[in-house]
Amino acid sequence: MSLNSRNLNVDHDKSSWKEECGVFGVWNHPQAAEMTYLGLYAMQHRGQESAGIVTSDGEKLHLHKGLGLVSDVFDSYKWNDLPGKSAIGHVRYSTTGQNLLINAQPLKADVRGKPIALAHNGNLVNSLELRENLQKQGSLFQGTSDSEIFLHLLSRIGGDNWSQTLPQALEWVQGAYSMAWMGVDRLVAIRDPMGFRPLVIGRFSDSSWVVASETCALDLVGAQYVREVEPGEIVTIDSRGLTSTQFKKSSKKAACVFELIYFSRPDSQTFGHHVYEARKKFGESLALESPVDADMVIPVPDSGVAAALGYAKQSGIPFEWGIVKNGYVGRTFIQPLQGMRDLGVQIKLNPQKALLKGKRIVVIDDSLVRGTTSKKIIQILRDAGAQEVHLRIASPATVSPCYYGVDTPEKSELIATQMDLEGIRKYIGADSLAYLTLKGLFKGLGENEETFCAACFNEKYPTRVNT
Amino acid sequence: MSLNSRNLNVDHDKSSWKEECGVFGVWNHPQAAEMTYLGLYAMQHRGQESAGIVTSDGEKLHLHKGLGLVSDVFDSYKWNDLPGKSAIGHVRYSTTGQNLLINAQPLKADVRGKPIALAHNGNLVNSLELRENLQKQGSLFQGTSDSEIFLHLLSRIGGDNWSQTLPQALEWVQGAYSMAWMGVDRLVAIRDPMGFRPLVIGRFSDSSWVVASETCALDLVGAQYVREVEPGEIVTIDSRGLTSTQFKKSSKKAACVFELIYFSRPDSQTFGHHVYEARKKFGESLALESPVDADMVIPVPDSGVAAALGYAKQSGIPFEWGIVKNGYVGRTFIQPLQGMRDLGVQIKLNPQKALLKGKRIVVIDDSLVRGTTSKKIIQILRDAGAQEVHLRIASPATVSPCYYGVDTPEKSELIATQMDLEGIRKYIGADSLAYLTLKGLFKGLGENEETFCAACFNEKYPTRVNT
Amino acid sequence: MSLNSRNLNVDHDKSSWKEECGVFGVWNHPQAAEMTYLGLYAMQHRGQESAGIVTSDGEKLHLHKGLGLVSDVFDSYKWNDLPGKSAIGHVRYSTTGQNLLINAQPLKADVRGKPIALAHNGNLVNSLELRENLQKQGSLFQGTSDSEIFLHLLSRIGGDNWSQTLPQALEWVQGAYSMAWMGVDRLVAIRDPMGFRPLVIGRFSDSSWVVASETCALDLVGAQYVREVEPGEIVTIDSRGLTSTQFKKSSKKAACVFELIYFSRPDSQTFGHHVYEARKKFGESLALESPVDADMVIPVPDSGVAAALGYAKQSGIPFEWGIVKNGYVGRTFIQPLQGMRDLGVQIKLNPQKALLKGKRIVVIDDSLVRGTTSKKIIQILRDAGAQEVHLRIASPATVSPCYYGVDTPEKSELIATQMDLEGIRKYIGADSLAYLTLKGLFKGLGENEETFCAACFNEKYPTRVNT
Amino acid sequence: MSLNSRNLNVDHDKSSWKEECGVFGVWNHPQAAEMTYLGLYAMQHRGQESAGIVTSDGEKLHLHKGLGLVSDVFDSYKWNDLPGKSAIGHVRYSTTGQNLLINAQPLKADVRGKPIALAHNGNLVNSLELRENLQKQGSLFQGTSDSEIFLHLLSRIGGDNWSQTLPQALEWVQGAYSMAWMGVDRLVAIRDPMGFRPLVIGRFSDSSWVVASETCALDLVGAQYVREVEPGEIVTIDSRGLTSTQFKKSSKKAACVFELIYFSRPDSQTFGHHVYEARKKFGESLALESPVDADMVIPVPDSGVAAALGYAKQSGIPFEWGIVKNGYVGRTFIQPLQGMRDLGVQIKLNPQKALLKGKRIVVIDDSLVRGTTSKKIIQILRDAGAQEVHLRIASPATVSPCYYGVDTPEKSELIATQMDLEGIRKYIGADSLAYLTLKGLFKGLGENEETFCAACFNEKYPTRVNT
Repeated sequence: MSLNSRNLNVDHDKSSWKEECGVFGVWNHPQAAEMTYLGLYAMQHRGQESAGIVTSDGEKLHLHKGLGLVSDVFDSYKWNDLPGKSAIGHVRYSTTGQNLLINAQPLKADVRGKPIALAHNGNLVNSLELRENLQKQGSLFQGTSDSEIFLHLLSRIGGDNWSQTLPQALEWVQGAYSMAWMGVDRLVAIRDPMGFRPLVIGRFSDSSWVVASETCALDLVGAQYVREVEPGEIVTIDSRGLTSTQFKKSSKKAACVFELIYFSRPDSQTFGHHVYEARKKFGESLALESPVDADMVIPVPDSGVAAALGYAKQSGIPFEWGIVKNGYVGRTFIQPLQGMRDLGVQIKLNPQKALLKGKRIVVIDDSLVRGTTSKKIIQILRDAGAQEVHLRIASPATVSPCYYGVDTPEKSELIATQMDLEGIRKYIGADSLAYLTLKGLFKGLGENEETFCAACFNEKYPTRVNT
Repeated sequence: MSLNSRNLNVDHDKSSWKEECGVFGVWNHPQAAEMTYLGLYAMQHRGQESAGIVTSDGEKLHLHKGLGLVSDVFDSYKWNDLPGKSAIGHVRYSTTGQNLLINAQPLKADVRGKPIALAHNGNLVNSLELRENLQKQGSLFQGTSDSEIFLHLLSRIGGDNWSQTLPQALEWVQGAYSMAWMGVDRLVAIRDPMGFRPLVIGRFSDSSWVVASETCALDLVGAQYVREVEPGEIVTIDSRGLTSTQFKKSSKKAACVFELIYFSRPDSQTFGHHVYEARKKFGESLALESPVDADMVIPVPDSGVAAALGYAKQSGIPFEWGIVKNGYVGRTFIQPLQGMRDLGVQIKLNPQKALLKGKRIVVIDDSLVRGTTSKKIIQILRDAGAQEVHLRIASPATVSPCYYGVDTPEKSELIATQMDLEGIRKYIGADSLAYLTLKGLFKGLGENEETFCAACFNEKYPTRVNT
Repeated sequence: MSLNSRNLNVDHDKSSWKEECGVFGVWNHPQAAEMTYLGLYAMQHRGQESAGIVTSDGEKLHLHKGLGLVSDVFDSYKWNDLPGKSAIGHVRYSTTGQNLLINAQPLKADVRGKPIALAHNGNLVNSLELRENLQKQGSLFQGTSDSEIFLHLLSRIGGDNWSQTLPQALEWVQGAYSMAWMGVDRLVAIRDPMGFRPLVIGRFSDSSWVVASETCALDLVGAQYVREVEPGEIVTIDSRGLTSTQFKKSSKKAACVFELIYFSRPDSQTFGHHVYEARKKFGESLALESPVDADMVIPVPDSGVAAALGYAKQSGIPFEWGIVKNGYVGRTFIQPLQGMRDLGVQIKLNPQKALLKGKRIVVIDDSLVRGTTSKKIIQILRDAGAQEVHLRIASPATVSPCYYGVDTPEKSELIATQMDLEGIRKYIGADSLAYLTLKGLFKGLGENEETFCAACFNEKYPTRVNT
Repeated sequence: MSLNSRNLNVDHDKSSWKEECGVFGVWNHPQAAEMTYLGLYAMQHRGQESAGIVTSDGEKLHLHKGLGLVSDVFDSYKWNDLPGKSAIGHVRYSTTGQNLLINAQPLKADVRGKPIALAHNGNLVNSLELRENLQKQGSLFQGTSDSEIFLHLLSRIGGDNWSQTLPQALEWVQGAYSMAWMGVDRLVAIRDPMGFRPLVIGRFSDSSWVVASETCALDLVGAQYVREVEPGEIVTIDSRGLTSTQFKKSSKKAACVFELIYFSRPDSQTFGHHVYEARKKFGESLALESPVDADMVIPVPDSGVAAALGYAKQSGIPFEWGIVKNGYVGRTFIQPLQGMRDLGVQIKLNPQKALLKGKRIVVIDDSLVRGTTSKKIIQILRDAGAQEVHLRIASPATVSPCYYGVDTPEKSELIATQMDLEGIRKYIGADSLAYLTLKGLFKGLGENEETFCAACFNEKYPTRVNT
């Protein structure tokens, strides 16, 4: 959680734990492109590398996308070039490389003469096989993203009504996909049968609808939250209204628990939980499981704030802003200064010496991935005069990569796969270290472990994966 | 206070209460320009419109300045073009207009053949007269800033050793000035006799020194805090070390109390106070003076955070993040969306509906200037379902403009000059409203009102002013 | 012809007669990307809207392309990101629209798992049918360019060795295509059976080769001209050297005569002719066919210069620079000045009053398309005091659009389809007007009309076309 | 001369012979800023490094200036920010350095409370003394340009009516100055007593006037040429019309002969001469003085074109475009290609092999400064197969630097000060080499040497100089 909705560049350990995407769609609104712009802006934390919008004016689709933040891509853009009353949009984090634009979304193509666009959050686990098969049949791939596969499948299956043939296409794919599709005359929202990634429905009126990855986008555009798109559901919105099809059932559900721990904005309702409250609960559970005698609880800003408030509440130890973040970090790139000591963390975070000196500190962070940043934070707290530094992590130890739409480090780079708890404690230099248990996490949430994917913590992948 | 050091664009009411400048200087450091860059970066909150650095290589001064944030101005800048082991730098907020660059600082000029540069924080109260007099004597002004006057005075007085004639020049000026001067062979720091604006000394070693408006800049460059430059003191640093001259004594001291309330970074030590602690104390005093029966205390992010923590602590009412700030605001300009409802506050701040619904809320902000933003914030809290909204302001009512280096609205735009307390309460739509008293403020601070300037609250200007 | 190689923005009537593309390829050169950059730079006049380079390092293809001039697209580009000893490149003129980048070339795709790139000059006449057929079979088109069709055909045909299956793919296409293809291990150059567009081979050594649309590119990279790629020929260059296949024979040849009139650079050898000399000859023929009693011959800069020199030589009338072009036009965009008289031509071209006053002038231009610019030029010559203005056009009247890779106006916008000669003369305000006859043109060239396409003048399209 | 008005980057030897400035002014025109923009655009060849405009709305002066071409500086500029019916403007070439903007013109300052702006072409010869004296009296210089001196002198002299005290200020300065001044209520044009630099008057009507460095600017804005501003004349234009004062008489006149040889646009009337015709005459004189038996005359584009036409006419040898210039050079920066042979000249100029092979060539250029570019051009002509290359220079040997507003190389870098004619011929590799004599130059011009400054050729400086 955060006072800020989150700031990629500041967020330390999570620089290696990247959200893949946010999707948005709007149906029948006089300012469809502008609404999509706002919706994407509210979900900027879900992807900072590219942004795009496709509108439908009833006859044609209009696309603009580019590299950069939402406001960069659409900065001087004339809304006149994105006419129409319906639209979908996408923000994307993507791996580096020169030709990023080719993977920027929404993707748009002519499928059997009909223009279709697609915005996708998630990752398929059988994309390599599908790609090879399609190529053998003569399909020509332009980019490297999983998402292009959906279009090729649809094109190959054919048929006059693309949203009716969609279920056939979806038979082939396995993995995580929360998607918004746009045709000239319809908006379609789809969530995979296990429901890895969030996707919600909102509305302006009975004839004007919104879909979005997070509810914070509904808040900003002023739409009312209706419900989640269900796992395995296709929601079609057109001039006749909203219709729903359950294209596939899965007894196993696999909502990504990391959305609640770190990805989603604290002010979103994700998988039915108020994210901020969930994080506070994680903090409370953590205080119960791993108490410590200390003078103050401080968060790693911004990701540890909610859990720290929970920890403080449960433990009775005062909550303090022990570390101040430079508000201009993230807005601006600080170029490397030749020959200087590493400023990595210091340039972003300044510990409050006067507050910390001689004190016993509990530091709360949401997760621990590589350990390098935690090590630095503990060091600057000690340099600032802290007498004891106890690190408490409001989630379990991360031990395995994600294959469902999160760009995680190699397994060998996850510190918890390389050292035991005491080893990690020594490495990061804390006086004590504790993780929240998975049991404690779900208890805090009041949920059954079975409805979530927690593979990054327990290696129980809900699907086969290519490891 | 803030988790973030502050973010101009987000800060609401204070969009009309602008800090003027930050100054920095470094003597005898192998990376003088880079250190100055970092120092300015740490003080970016003191001015976002222009930035500049002047270095001395012992023979010449080298200047680079430009419009924009520190990292914009120096983005592709080659440090090789700013050679030398000493430097001064400046960040500036300035009024709008096309020719801003001419007023960007440091100013540099040849004074009787010797290159001198100057970085100034503050405003003079007799600049118009001085300017007219100098023009009558043939001085040619390029820009419109007060700061140019110092150079003209020095030029007119003449003499071989400019820092020795400086006191004569300073005889003429009245008002606020905390300054760093750079000659090829010396760094000079000066603070006006009443000490309106902060200025501190730090050091790397016995032969390497730093001066800065705030201690957060010392923290980032890794220098040790030594002491404040005293009111009426000229500190000269050259190859022989640091020497001090008291050029003028004033029995009245006038440290700007608003530095502690809002301007300075929470992690700075300003006028001997840890700013964060001071703000927490203001919140505690406020809770004592104006208690309210409520379910939670929430801050207006980011400026009300520290005071809200103090209020919560004193009152025992739980502290909550009731409002989440979009972390991308400020980084990016959201272009006006034609024909849409005003998104001013909403695009920056999202109230947490699930948390606030049906609750009695105390909202804490650091100050109340025009009232327009408070009105909007209270509205979005009510829209989010809050049952009661009580606004508590951690400083007194602002009733008069500043003439000492803060860009304030006209007196008539200060809401407290137009309405009584009940009128303001109604206008902003709060269930109750209370300010911290001036007495409560100084009590929280543990200081005597006489050593501060609080003219914006009590109209007691420490100097004559041109109203 | 021109002193300058040509300047899109200055060229007046031809703003509606646009070259489509230039292609370049290099095999086995230590600076393949740089050479391609230079080759494209020399052919910048063939396309100003996008530029791209694909290199092969023997294992992978590396692509960079973008919108703008060659030097814009590669401005800050690190050659390190385009490694390898072989490359192809492309410059493109394309129709307006927001998503130009998707049509920028070279195109690159995985064809049955093998990376292939393609740079194409020309247009197909059966692209709509091909596209529809391919879509029916499940092919997914990303862009709207003809060139993508080649890749889909190749992908559909399949086979292990793409350059061996290429002839099968080419069976399907009709129209103009001069192309360079790049695989990881080969460079392939292809020219359609009628040879509409130019394509030449050059070499650095027996193992290092170049292909290019024009010889001016060979000059700049320092390669030696070898020969044209023949109509219907596939030239494959790989580690075993250069091999040639005649994939199709056509008795009809159709070299585009407009390349010699306007498109090619004057210093190129195109279709075996020195373009500058050809244009001078057109001017000489024109002087023989349509003499006039006058004081001086002046060119419309830059396109009429060579023909004007020929006209002056044949007629004995002195050649003069009657019109001076502003050398900064084209480099810079002059924004519309509200409420001012149309500056269209005047801002680019200034007639030399002192030279023209009271004189009888023959103005030479290379072609006459819409007539609007000629009208303006004649007007400014009269305003400058010319007594008589006789317009002579060094090509026949343009009466029909091109379907082979030139972006021409609608037939109804071609002035010669709307008025007879006298009507045009009156419209443009000349004292007399004459075109070069097609017979005179080919006589000047010393060529048989049968080996050229002159459909824009005589409507004899060498293929079926979709009119 | 040139088909193009000229192109800095292409012009070779003259990259070390730089024009200083162009000035423009307009009085009482409803689109004063736009007119000034166009006037500067027409004179862009006189300065490419900065551009600026000051307008008067009758009460205030409004300034915008910046680094770059006219169209860059005013690209997105809203004319609304430059209100008023009168304006002056300036284009500047200036030496390199980071703080160029401080020297960009027009300069604007408050002189005794009155806003005045100044645009200056030329250089003073006693600026160092003046500067020192003014500094001793307390004047503070911001920049390093001569032009600032005028403002300081005026400020020091004082008086209520600045244009009446101007003659007193001008008493002090020596050297070259053609200037436009703007006050809120007047436009003043001044030319130094010897008239080094050109300055002309034009008019729209009896109450609306223009001043400009060259007549090509009058042509573009559509004003009528009236006359030159006379040497030693102050022309004041205000609401009462145009009045003239002769502030100083000088028997010696010193019009810069290089304006006719190279600087001015060929389509300008400078010092009463049509520049294009003058250059043709230089070519004719050159042919008479230094004939050669050859097959063709070719110009170095663009600067040698007019003289080459004259040489061809007089000699009867055919004129040919032997060298084609890439029309995109100058528009775009070609970045250095690591490890490649020097492309300096080749990238700009391509010799027409087919034309030159086996031929005896006379190459005409306007001047020869360092010789390095001529050497390269002769080399590429030989590489193209030319049998003989004879270089003819349409001006005398350059032997001495300019102190009047042209940025020339050091004397020691002028090749004619280092070698005799035969030495230069060998160095550049020509079969023969000849300069036009100074006598021949003035004969061609039909003028008396006494009214011109030809110090760069004969070292007869019309004033004392600081060598």
